[in-house]
Amino acid sequence: MSKILIRAMVLPMTGPDVFYPQGEITIVDDRILSVGERGSAPSGFVPDRILDLPNDVLMPGLINTHTHAAMTLLRSYADDLPLMPWLNEKVWPFEEKLTDEDIYWGTALALCEMIRSGTTTMLDMYASMDQVAEAVLKAGTRAVLSRGLIGNGPNGEQAFQESIDLVERYHGAGKGRVKIMFGPHAPYTCSGEYLQKVKAEADRLSVGIHIHVAETRDEINIIQEKFGKTPVQWLDELGLFGGHVVAAHCVHLTPEDMEILARKHVCVAHNAESNMKLNSGTAPIIELQGKGVIVGLGTDGASSNNNLDLFGEMRSAAFQQKLRVSSTALPAYEVLKMATVGGAQTLGLEDVGILAPGFKADLITLDMDQPHFYPRFSIPSHLVYSAHAGDVRTVMVDGIFLMEERKILTMDVKKVCQEAETRAKRISTELSC
Amino acid sequence: MSKILIRAMVLPMTGPDVFYPQGEITIVDDRILSVGERGSAPSGFVPDRILDLPNDVLMPGLINTHTHAAMTLLRSYADDLPLMPWLNEKVWPFEEKLTDEDIYWGTALALCEMIRSGTTTMLDMYASMDQVAEAVLKAGTRAVLSRGLIGNGPNGEQAFQESIDLVERYHGAGKGRVKIMFGPHAPYTCSGEYLQKVKAEADRLSVGIHIHVAETRDEINIIQEKFGKTPVQWLDELGLFGGHVVAAHCVHLTPEDMEILARKHVCVAHNAESNMKLNSGTAPIIELQGKGVIVGLGTDGASSNNNLDLFGEMRSAAFQQKLRVSSTALPAYEVLKMATVGGAQTLGLEDVGILAPGFKADLITLDMDQPHFYPRFSIPSHLVYSAHAGDVRTVMVDGIFLMEERKILTMDVKKVCQEAETRAKRISTELSC
Repeated sequence: MSKILIRAMVLPMTGPDVFYPQGEITIVDDRILSVGERGSAPSGFVPDRILDLPNDVLMPGLINTHTHAAMTLLRSYADDLPLMPWLNEKVWPFEEKLTDEDIYWGTALALCEMIRSGTTTMLDMYASMDQVAEAVLKAGTRAVLSRGLIGNGPNGEQAFQESIDLVERYHGAGKGRVKIMFGPHAPYTCSGEYLQKVKAEADRLSVGIHIHVAETRDEINIIQEKFGKTPVQWLDELGLFGGHVVAAHCVHLTPEDMEILARKHVCVAHNAESNMKLNSGTAPIIELQGKGVIVGLGTDGASSNNNLDLFGEMRSAAFQQKLRVSSTALPAYEVLKMATVGGAQTLGLEDVGILAPGFKADLITLDMDQPHFYPRFSIPSHLVYSAHAGDVRTVMVDGIFLMEERKILTMDVKKVCQEAETRAKRISTELSC
Repeated sequence: MSKILIRAMVLPMTGPDVFYPQGEITIVDDRILSVGERGSAPSGFVPDRILDLPNDVLMPGLINTHTHAAMTLLRSYADDLPLMPWLNEKVWPFEEKLTDEDIYWGTALALCEMIRSGTTTMLDMYASMDQVAEAVLKAGTRAVLSRGLIGNGPNGEQAFQESIDLVERYHGAGKGRVKIMFGPHAPYTCSGEYLQKVKAEADRLSVGIHIHVAETRDEINIIQEKFGKTPVQWLDELGLFGGHVVAAHCVHLTPEDMEILARKHVCVAHNAESNMKLNSGTAPIIELQGKGVIVGLGTDGASSNNNLDLFGEMRSAAFQQKLRVSSTALPAYEVLKMATVGGAQTLGLEDVGILAPGFKADLITLDMDQPHFYPRFSIPSHLVYSAHAGDVRTVMVDGIFLMEERKILTMDVKKVCQEAETRAKRISTELSC
């Protein structure tokens, strides 16, 4: 049995007024035993280890609700291009060259970056998901994984079968750290029939669905032309909604679409930076939240963002809504909720996202003894508007330290970086020949 | 005489194709002697010191073209509020309590943050500018300073006189590191007569003018109602333009306004994050650059941003224009130019902003041996889309190291942070009584 006590400024994300400037948290094995002021540990609790970080803020680990982790291999390969040439001439040819091993190392690179920037859980959509699962198990993070399903593509059936295998092999792996969802790519890359088959199988296996919805104006036009409906209406009529569904992006929505999402309890993964960088648009986050829709934050893949830093994503999400609506939109604490408890709800994880007794010990600390964190009027403001990835000092998942003093303990970061560099360069060389 | 040689990946910002993956730079006293591939140092050059940073990118120091440095003291004091209550109930009452010493320590805090995030030069506008100048001289950075002039306020005449004194006392101080401009606050806080008096005096003393222009819709309405013109037209008719003028914000411009700015060689300080966070709007940067207007980047004060990190500002500037125009708008190298050579041009500094023989040795290095900088397809993309303040390892201004291995050498950072904390809390306590 492992017993850990950490002293720090504790922001448990259990309510806007709950903050322990001189706090402590106790952890037994993978779960939190107590959270409170200094001295609040249960009497008789004898820790194996005490970590004193009085100038750090300790908070729940961040949750990335939409990414394509292995696409770190394409980071900075093709930026500032129009969407279709970017996909046709750069992204897709590159991805066709990826081997299973490449995807393992690309995911490992993503996980190194995520740990360093305080992300403890991701919802991923990609191929070769066994490799992704193995990388997650090695890194020690938490993840919900979905095999991307291009129903209209040549591998639609094979990928569908892989999704079923993935559930059987990895749903609940790593003492529950890994979960699986089905990942039909988007309404314009899967037929109605295919989507219904996916939904039936997901229901049969009791797992959720992760899908891109209403990301670009082009998608809206395609679905409107084909079916005379919006993507949300089309998916709703197909019966895709109702269970646990994470809809990524949701940039272009009608008021009726928002009603449907709210009524059907669809959760939204909001990707502010990707939506800006690719000129997709500004998602109506304030309106969605106003209707009671759960919204989490995502970075999207490193090919479009280009980093996996949820601190930057929080800031951008706030800025984008403030620009569109008003300076009072998405206040700091609300954005923090989206990146923590909102992310957990989006992913259907009931025991992460806040720091409370009985919850999983998924937490991070940030070094607040730095110029950009003074004066200390508001910790939530600092975390959203001033913090950056480099401020994260400690990362724990399931009661295990994954990073201390900015040093990752579960992976050989140097090797991961070198493998990623070599493999990405191999592919770009092949493509330029 | 000091002779330094640094080996690194060198991005001199002298052209989009100029990059030395295995480069070196030599520095004699305050100036660059040579820049090029490894082994390019002039024969016979014997350095006193060699710095080997093969995994760092070495580039020009960043230039912040609009800030109110001492407002770090208000960081996180009042966020997510509507503009007028924010100013009336929070910012202005706080500022009224600031002593000269408070402004010294608030500026020192800003300078610590700037050095840590790779900013070597700022254009500042505030009060008690002697204190600001002294903090800059102590920190070792470069700065252009302007006493903010609220012509319509009770201290309009006194501040005008202070501006003249400031020129006499500090223009050219610190071996030219400090320069002075006049800082009439905005067209809606200064009368036409006052602005003309400022312009005449600035001309007489051969210094430039730094002014907020067309920041908010309210400002446009006020000037339209009063004078039947846009702020740019009004300032142009008053004769304010023509010499060296830095116009901060320029969010709301007509095509004619842009023509005037281009014709009169007015430089624009673009503050993407402040403009988003305060719901000011999106400045037409692409159009301004299309007309040949020089644009630099600014963070604005930490009360509105809330950090002074130009890496974040670069990313936000790119994202904001891409969101408004297209995914191809403001490509990475163009954004880097705005933060370096464009900033130097905006501030009228002819020997900083690029790394070239004869230029001042104002440079920074970033540790690129980190997961978020792999693979290395494009260094400019990495610097704009992946980098954060915490990646900066080394800072040099005028040939002097201000920071090495992330340790600031010119200031007692702990004391600065404590002074800022104590002083800011004193004021907030006074105000809440």
